[in-house]
Amino acid sequence: MIRRIDRIAVELPPPSEPDPAGAQAVQELMGGRFGEMSTFMNYTIQSFNFRNRQGARPFYDLVANIAAEEFGHMELVATAINTMLTGASPTDDGRAPKASLVPLKGVGNPHHFLAGGQGALPQNSQGRPWNGDYVFSSGDLVEDLTHNFFLETGARNNKLKVWEMVDHPAARALTGYLLVRGGVHQVAYARALERLTGADLMKLFPSPRIPTEKIPDCKPYIDRGEHLRLYRFSPDDYLELAAVWNGPHPETGDELEVVDEAPEGVPAFDLPAQPAVFAPDYAPEEIAAIAEKLRVKAGLSKEPTGRVANGKPAKNSKPRRAPRKKAAAK
Amino acid sequence: MIRRIDRIAVELPPPSEPDPAGAQAVQELMGGRFGEMSTFMNYTIQSFNFRNRQGARPFYDLVANIAAEEFGHMELVATAINTMLTGASPTDDGRAPKASLVPLKGVGNPHHFLAGGQGALPQNSQGRPWNGDYVFSSGDLVEDLTHNFFLETGARNNKLKVWEMVDHPAARALTGYLLVRGGVHQVAYARALERLTGADLMKLFPSPRIPTEKIPDCKPYIDRGEHLRLYRFSPDDYLELAAVWNGPHPETGDELEVVDEAPEGVPAFDLPAQPAVFAPDYAPEEIAAIAEKLRVKAGLSKEPTGRVANGKPAKNSKPRRAPRKKAAAK
Amino acid sequence: MIRRIDRIAVELPPPSEPDPAGAQAVQELMGGRFGEMSTFMNYTIQSFNFRNRQGARPFYDLVANIAAEEFGHMELVATAINTMLTGASPTDDGRAPKASLVPLKGVGNPHHFLAGGQGALPQNSQGRPWNGDYVFSSGDLVEDLTHNFFLETGARNNKLKVWEMVDHPAARALTGYLLVRGGVHQVAYARALERLTGADLMKLFPSPRIPTEKIPDCKPYIDRGEHLRLYRFSPDDYLELAAVWNGPHPETGDELEVVDEAPEGVPAFDLPAQPAVFAPDYAPEEIAAIAEKLRVKAGLSKEPTGRVANGKPAKNSKPRRAPRKKAAAK
Amino acid sequence: MIRRIDRIAVELPPPSEPDPAGAQAVQELMGGRFGEMSTFMNYTIQSFNFRNRQGARPFYDLVANIAAEEFGHMELVATAINTMLTGASPTDDGRAPKASLVPLKGVGNPHHFLAGGQGALPQNSQGRPWNGDYVFSSGDLVEDLTHNFFLETGARNNKLKVWEMVDHPAARALTGYLLVRGGVHQVAYARALERLTGADLMKLFPSPRIPTEKIPDCKPYIDRGEHLRLYRFSPDDYLELAAVWNGPHPETGDELEVVDEAPEGVPAFDLPAQPAVFAPDYAPEEIAAIAEKLRVKAGLSKEPTGRVANGKPAKNSKPRRAPRKKAAAK
Amino acid sequence: MIRRIDRIAVELPPPSEPDPAGAQAVQELMGGRFGEMSTFMNYTIQSFNFRNRQGARPFYDLVANIAAEEFGHMELVATAINTMLTGASPTDDGRAPKASLVPLKGVGNPHHFLAGGQGALPQNSQGRPWNGDYVFSSGDLVEDLTHNFFLETGARNNKLKVWEMVDHPAARALTGYLLVRGGVHQVAYARALERLTGADLMKLFPSPRIPTEKIPDCKPYIDRGEHLRLYRFSPDDYLELAAVWNGPHPETGDELEVVDEAPEGVPAFDLPAQPAVFAPDYAPEEIAAIAEKLRVKAGLSKEPTGRVANGKPAKNSKPRRAPRKKAAAK
Amino acid sequence: MIRRIDRIAVELPPPSEPDPAGAQAVQELMGGRFGEMSTFMNYTIQSFNFRNRQGARPFYDLVANIAAEEFGHMELVATAINTMLTGASPTDDGRAPKASLVPLKGVGNPHHFLAGGQGALPQNSQGRPWNGDYVFSSGDLVEDLTHNFFLETGARNNKLKVWEMVDHPAARALTGYLLVRGGVHQVAYARALERLTGADLMKLFPSPRIPTEKIPDCKPYIDRGEHLRLYRFSPDDYLELAAVWNGPHPETGDELEVVDEAPEGVPAFDLPAQPAVFAPDYAPEEIAAIAEKLRVKAGLSKEPTGRVANGKPAKNSKPRRAPRKKAAAK
Repeated sequence: MIRRIDRIAVELPPPSEPDPAGAQAVQELMGGRFGEMSTFMNYTIQSFNFRNRQGARPFYDLVANIAAEEFGHMELVATAINTMLTGASPTDDGRAPKASLVPLKGVGNPHHFLAGGQGALPQNSQGRPWNGDYVFSSGDLVEDLTHNFFLETGARNNKLKVWEMVDHPAARALTGYLLVRGGVHQVAYARALERLTGADLMKLFPSPRIPTEKIPDCKPYIDRGEHLRLYRFSPDDYLELAAVWNGPHPETGDELEVVDEAPEGVPAFDLPAQPAVFAPDYAPEEIAAIAEKLRVKAGLSKEPTGRVANGKPAKNSKPRRAPRKKAAAK
Repeated sequence: MIRRIDRIAVELPPPSEPDPAGAQAVQELMGGRFGEMSTFMNYTIQSFNFRNRQGARPFYDLVANIAAEEFGHMELVATAINTMLTGASPTDDGRAPKASLVPLKGVGNPHHFLAGGQGALPQNSQGRPWNGDYVFSSGDLVEDLTHNFFLETGARNNKLKVWEMVDHPAARALTGYLLVRGGVHQVAYARALERLTGADLMKLFPSPRIPTEKIPDCKPYIDRGEHLRLYRFSPDDYLELAAVWNGPHPETGDELEVVDEAPEGVPAFDLPAQPAVFAPDYAPEEIAAIAEKLRVKAGLSKEPTGRVANGKPAKNSKPRRAPRKKAAAK
Repeated sequence: MIRRIDRIAVELPPPSEPDPAGAQAVQELMGGRFGEMSTFMNYTIQSFNFRNRQGARPFYDLVANIAAEEFGHMELVATAINTMLTGASPTDDGRAPKASLVPLKGVGNPHHFLAGGQGALPQNSQGRPWNGDYVFSSGDLVEDLTHNFFLETGARNNKLKVWEMVDHPAARALTGYLLVRGGVHQVAYARALERLTGADLMKLFPSPRIPTEKIPDCKPYIDRGEHLRLYRFSPDDYLELAAVWNGPHPETGDELEVVDEAPEGVPAFDLPAQPAVFAPDYAPEEIAAIAEKLRVKAGLSKEPTGRVANGKPAKNSKPRRAPRKKAAAK
Repeated sequence: MIRRIDRIAVELPPPSEPDPAGAQAVQELMGGRFGEMSTFMNYTIQSFNFRNRQGARPFYDLVANIAAEEFGHMELVATAINTMLTGASPTDDGRAPKASLVPLKGVGNPHHFLAGGQGALPQNSQGRPWNGDYVFSSGDLVEDLTHNFFLETGARNNKLKVWEMVDHPAARALTGYLLVRGGVHQVAYARALERLTGADLMKLFPSPRIPTEKIPDCKPYIDRGEHLRLYRFSPDDYLELAAVWNGPHPETGDELEVVDEAPEGVPAFDLPAQPAVFAPDYAPEEIAAIAEKLRVKAGLSKEPTGRVANGKPAKNSKPRRAPRKKAAAK
Repeated sequence: MIRRIDRIAVELPPPSEPDPAGAQAVQELMGGRFGEMSTFMNYTIQSFNFRNRQGARPFYDLVANIAAEEFGHMELVATAINTMLTGASPTDDGRAPKASLVPLKGVGNPHHFLAGGQGALPQNSQGRPWNGDYVFSSGDLVEDLTHNFFLETGARNNKLKVWEMVDHPAARALTGYLLVRGGVHQVAYARALERLTGADLMKLFPSPRIPTEKIPDCKPYIDRGEHLRLYRFSPDDYLELAAVWNGPHPETGDELEVVDEAPEGVPAFDLPAQPAVFAPDYAPEEIAAIAEKLRVKAGLSKEPTGRVANGKPAKNSKPRRAPRKKAAAK
Repeated sequence: MIRRIDRIAVELPPPSEPDPAGAQAVQELMGGRFGEMSTFMNYTIQSFNFRNRQGARPFYDLVANIAAEEFGHMELVATAINTMLTGASPTDDGRAPKASLVPLKGVGNPHHFLAGGQGALPQNSQGRPWNGDYVFSSGDLVEDLTHNFFLETGARNNKLKVWEMVDHPAARALTGYLLVRGGVHQVAYARALERLTGADLMKLFPSPRIPTEKIPDCKPYIDRGEHLRLYRFSPDDYLELAAVWNGPHPETGDELEVVDEAPEGVPAFDLPAQPAVFAPDYAPEEIAAIAEKLRVKAGLSKEPTGRVANGKPAKNSKPRRAPRKKAAAK
């Protein structure tokens, strides 16, 4: 099971100049063979299928825990895409049925506008949907780890290329962060293979062989040590990842460390409505009015309670609400 | 972001008589168009893409929160499949390279044995991979909710059919639970549409029109009120689902209630190794020895620390481990 | 545009012993690369895209008109599949939630039961969906005709094989008819190529080289001359197919003939409800009661008006109904 | 079975400035998940699979009849695409092997030129083929209608977006018409659900919530009442749709009406040859000469007999032709 | 470019008891993600795309040369499947149109009979077609080699499982040979990575961790040293693979060796016609008569000239034929 | 089995102005339904599956031998794509992590840069992967030949269109050659059908009906007689193709001729590294240094031994190397 936190892993910039062609490219990191849906789903399903968990606990814990971080990466990629698409259609006076999408004809992924509401899709940079053939779950631990190391290697390649191709601030912030955190997972799987077989895999790094510190957008994260840390994304579980994640970092030589809780994260920007594509509505203000009425009727605050980067912060994190009984069931 | 809990949502029976053909059928609930990957991914991506969240907060909270529960449903389906496949190949004297898989030729999904280690796959009952075309995220709130109501309706249909076709105890326990919880989500989306449009949709229930209480495996859950509760799967967020989830249940008339925390869940069974398919290894005891050595070396306990239904419980949930510094970073 | 007639092209037998594995095989003729969805969609889209129609009118008329017959073939295949699936689940006392589908676990196409209501699917014999890559529409007339001849050749091969594999009466009646009518189309496209290029293609027949008259289920149709006739499926259009369809039949030497109207067809059997799969409902009698009420309220007859093979015939084909104004618009 | 009429449902403008990028976008309405192939195939296959038709006759008639109209919509979309692609390659002096397609490199869907003859494809706006997974046919009447209502909702969304993005006259005329007629089907399925369950679904309209009358290209059709009429696309069948299609229109309040015959339609433009892509030939005049010779030889008129918008009308609709015997067979 | 030799890499047994369900399983080694189409196509396309070949010549030569061997493996898999399917339909008195395929309904891959002529398909064990997403060609040498090592690891897993599941003599002979030769390629890619990075990867063997010598069907090949040899599949090229392929074998410690020519191979069995599926014809003897006539007319021998395991050997490998001029062109 | 020759079939020009959008179009000839992967795989698999080879030897030899030539065509298409992509990213000072790919955002197939290293992909012009459904192997000889004739017809259409659209010198040289050689195969399959059935198919040429000599890039090949020759791609096998390939050419009337050996071919250009996409590395000179060291250590020459168009030729084709024993095994 999971618990969900309404925060994203790292700060991304607010919307600026829209970049639909860039958003198309960033989709590779969402729904491509080596995108974040793939890393998330591979490790999740491998953890579901893990047999003899107690016997192989350090490895189970490693895979299951990294899966949890990957959810947050998938969320970040979606956030970047949504940010880059914001403003691509007019938001004020260009409401449908004006011809607001004419300038977007032949630009980027047509589904961003025709099928979706200027939002992220489970597709790659070519508009092809992610599919389950991208998941490898053989059950054989050494093989699954070999796959995972390869997957992270391919993912690093794709992120480097997207970094080079898309200079929108959101894409750069995204790839800078993901390169560092993906690098952690790449090392983690190589380490796990070393622990099981004795082969010295640290010499394979970096792969592709461009040093991470050459990417300027990675630097802030390296400076604060993000390349060394494996966070534990669970209040009480997955303790044994510490049995795998230790020793020196292959590129910097610094000692790897386990952080015994998940990153705190930050609230996301509440991206504005795009009425030309009916997201979330042709007349979003009507929904807001309904929402307020429903809140009041349910005994909640008049104001919305959510945490967003660009709103006034909710005064307290547990706003007044009608008392409810706690379920007796497990 | 998410936090992961190493427990499953509800108790499923331990392995008994293997049922590979049944496991093939249950895959429909995993990777089918209306399976749990679909519900999880639809609501997750819709929540990622949600614009003007503050304005439409009750609806954002509802979708984002149900997504979190669906992860646990996907996990349950995988667990049931893995349980049903356990023992299908010999575990003791039939280790490869004996011809241990001959009796499985032509039975069930061949990938359960040839590609995977008797584990769940992101495929449907026909062996076709789940794909991103099963996700609908138009950004238009009314449409997305209309889709979600339809999706839950199709999901209920599939679960009823799998219930009828597969009488393995794990499949029955699974579908009994999912029918009740899926019914909650079906009502939730109908309610949300009602709140936005005023249309009285409660008359559409049940759909398919077979009363839930006629399914014997649903009864225990109805008796303890699981059909009425919407759990909040977050420590601090998604409070406003209470603005939508209220009023009477369309089938029983009981008052709907929000439960202000997630279900506690139960530890899963640690399913045994299946060496004939190398899961987790041809010689799983060797991995166990390595794991123990790694634990000790890392200053963790000699015994595995995980929570499983069939192990002796970890003595305390926070076993001794080498002290680590908490990250200063967010 | 089309007009639809609630009759099928030829009589198929009523349900008898169900044959789900046979129905799986017959799906090849529905959604396979050479199935009837393919013939229908290929000729339909080619006709939509036909340029310089007036200049090439005999060929346009031929393709457009054959497309219309293929709709009826697709309908026949679906009817045969539905017939073969009828009774595979209990209809009386085995209503869900009884375990009525257990005997069908591992039998046939699982979607026939888990996804559909024991009905035909747009899939092939392997359960893979039909897709648009099966359509060839180059716009080049000679090439499109070459394709169509090849398509009909592959279709004949598949029909012969299905005939050999499935001895259910509905499958045999179906393939016997389709082999004869498909043969007509195979000749038609070869003739059209001959007319355009002068190449003598009649020597390619039969292909596969098994004489059609060796298939006993074809004999009744050959006896009544169905292998010689090209029907005109339009009240006023496609007259020029007569400029292509003439000369001797390549196998029998009889003169080909154009029939200046479509076959009359026969009413289909009204296949019984299958409540175990909720088709059309868990309690179909309730729908019948609603339907009757709606008819009466709308000024229609109390009894259903449709034409079915197993119902008492509607007394007159134009039952009493409330007078309605004819639209003035085109 | 069907009969085919060589006319299109509504007048579309003749070719003007070509718009290949626009044609790429319009493909979403052809082969997209919510395109006209989807509406046509969904209702067609649902009608094929309909069990207990007599018992549920009004609903069977409704679905089967709407299917027939959708064929005409699919035809209209293809016509619009073909119109928009006409002239994109040179037609006179630019015959292959001149480099006539160079300006089209990187523009629109490459298959429009490389695979097809500047014609419509069974693909979506991303160039991905339509596939059978877009068809839902559960057999459960309430569910199938729920799906159909959702499908029409998604289709309306796509049409609105294409309207906004593509301002070519053919695309505008197309979407204006389809929005009105698709709206009729959206209401029809909602009505059918209301009749079966009692839920008041009229409040869900319009969805997306932009009033139809705000779309200028819809206005002519609303003015002449096209939003109110359900045509009966059959000489003798599907009478009982009148039992469902009645009551007030949800947006205008006008009374819904059944029109007891299909729209008359109009002849399509005969789109000119595009010799650079060999459609219908590298030297189309040679085909015309062959066609004339074949007509004469078959005893038909020397002039082509077809009905086209830009030809001189055929003098009589039943030109002289060699007498043929009417088939005795059914 | 290639030259083709009408011999297969190793002797497979002649047809015996047919095994259609086994043939379905063996398809995984043909068209599965880790099948021989994948190894062949991956290395072939990587070699096509290899940049700076001269600079990285030993690695280019290695990849390009292994590609050539994989063609022969793909051929062997097809041969095994064809052998296992031989006799599944009657060959003598059961010619179509007798119901010769009825016993095969619901057995194995239906396309083996309905679409093909009891022959191999470019599909996996689930009947899904091989596709280009199974090819990885990043251009980055270290990454491509990492992929290739992973691919061979997955391939070894699949071969072991097929060995366990299918005990037909042809399948056993096939997998015994492929496991040994695939092991050579697995070592080769690990070696290449070692040469480039210095990481000691030999400790990863075997993977899956079942010793190869435990597979009885591998033993003959190990005994004759096939696990040590890398053959050079070219008369004059790819010499530099010797710069990578050297040092001790990771399992046996024996010295690796380059063999400076390709294996001689053996003629394949000429598998008998299967007239029930029209392979190669309904009346194969008619084709044979035509063939003889054509040979004689062209000045070739009256008898067929090919090399087959079960024919009388062609008297000389260069039978008399009409003199032809050697092309002057390159 | 095959032997591989490190030469390409015909000379293509060296890299000049990069043309990524052109490379996207040329992909149709690689991975499209009618591309060279399709011709290669169709004939290869048909030859693998060919039953009663001795009986039908001339036809088996024809198909098997043409397959071998198609490998070289697939190689040529890849070479042209790689040539056209060379230089699209900076090669000197633009090494990653500079933003070297920004100008390529929204241009061509994004996978050329994001997934691959500016290399060819097994995809079509829309970025969709080649798949096994493009292979037809019915086992029925007449049908397979009918398919192959149709396939070559479609391939000719695609090549003509690519010729028209892409004027890059590499694309023009490629299509000029392939049109002539593909034409040979088109005639070969038509001839084979004629031999089997007696139908005169030569009248179908050319198809599409544009004379080959109108394509200027075909002229050099026609002038030297390439349209007349069928090469035998095997040292000792496939002699009987001479029984089919004879008679006059349908367009020129010249006598067809068999050439008793394969074309010699030419060395390919060694395309330069593209460090911005890490092909073959971020620092390709380091690989070159390693390669040299490995060569020396293995007793090979210090200089690379390969044959490339732009290197200084290897002094002798069999450079000094450590003596190795010839394998005793077959």
